[in-house]
Amino acid sequence: MREVFHEQLSRVGRDLSTMADLAAAALRGATVALLDGELNRADEVIRGNEAMGLLQADVEAHAMDLLACQAPVAGDLRMLVAGLRMSADLERMGGLTVHLAQISARRHPEQAIPADLSSTIAQMAAAAAELADGASHIIKGQDLETARTLGLRDDEIDRLHEDLLTALLTSAPGREARAAIDVTLAGRYYERFADHAVSIAHRLEFAVTGVDSSV
Amino acid sequence: MREVFHEQLSRVGRDLSTMADLAAAALRGATVALLDGELNRADEVIRGNEAMGLLQADVEAHAMDLLACQAPVAGDLRMLVAGLRMSADLERMGGLTVHLAQISARRHPEQAIPADLSSTIAQMAAAAAELADGASHIIKGQDLETARTLGLRDDEIDRLHEDLLTALLTSAPGREARAAIDVTLAGRYYERFADHAVSIAHRLEFAVTGVDSSV
Repeated sequence: MREVFHEQLSRVGRDLSTMADLAAAALRGATVALLDGELNRADEVIRGNEAMGLLQADVEAHAMDLLACQAPVAGDLRMLVAGLRMSADLERMGGLTVHLAQISARRHPEQAIPADLSSTIAQMAAAAAELADGASHIIKGQDLETARTLGLRDDEIDRLHEDLLTALLTSAPGREARAAIDVTLAGRYYERFADHAVSIAHRLEFAVTGVDSSV
Repeated sequence: MREVFHEQLSRVGRDLSTMADLAAAALRGATVALLDGELNRADEVIRGNEAMGLLQADVEAHAMDLLACQAPVAGDLRMLVAGLRMSADLERMGGLTVHLAQISARRHPEQAIPADLSSTIAQMAAAAAELADGASHIIKGQDLETARTLGLRDDEIDRLHEDLLTALLTSAPGREARAAIDVTLAGRYYERFADHAVSIAHRLEFAVTGVDSSV
């Protein structure tokens, strides 16, 4: 019975780490679309997000089945509930990559991000995508050491986000309101994407140790 | 055994509807702070949000206990998992009210929202607070009819949000970037607050009927 349970739980874990890989790839694609104005990359991200919804539904169905049929307790129960929450985080990360792609699609053929702000956006994007890589890695290996380092990358993203808004505020007058809106939203989406990756790390830590380090 | 279970489940429901009431009140407070520049209201919202975290922890602890000790199935299991998710939605709604309060606190004594945009913000806020009232009502009464109407209010908020961004784009040149950032973020926060309230309605519907209407 427990072997079946752990085999099914591994399947949930594999789906979750696939979702994290897809989220990282989508974030990188959306960033190319945003910074280089590549409309086809934006379309790819928007269409590709359907796979995230299917995987999330798969994770939820499996987790609910396991809860109902195996009545897990203690660490197994925590791991399943954490899996349900991680699937919600990952689905949201996918949604945020769609929002980023939509910004670039809406402005095409113009560039949404002004040239002087693109390097800060590129740095936020690189750090956020690495957080999603990290989330995939820690889900695969239940690697608590790496989980605990993800918060540091997130601090870096928060600093870059502040830099971005400061640059927007101190920029030459005459910057279009459109650019201010796009940059503000893009910055917020990268920040939230990173927050969800860090929250996955906290959820894993809680599932493994029973201690919630996020509060 | 089932009586104890349902008594405990009712307690989770009461906590959740209290959280929805707090979220609605905090959103109204944050809006007064934002539109009238009342710093003490902003402080109230920021300090008051601690109660949301405590209630969420209470809901989670109870739900995990019930899952572990009572091994619920079918509708009872769905209701508990839905409760866990609702608590996450509600905690996030509280977080968004804090973000709104922080916008006004950061700009004090200046007004964050330009006078010509304040009526659209006020309308978004009123509709979003009513959605939180609705979420509290449907959690209390498991009222599916009302749950199904919440999506309509959300459509209204989406339209107001578009109006807001259009007004920002077409406004007189010379609008400060600071105002564009504040209005863009505030609009996004109200929109997300409303999305979470609607998601609570979907979760309740799923818990009661077993059918997920959100996909």
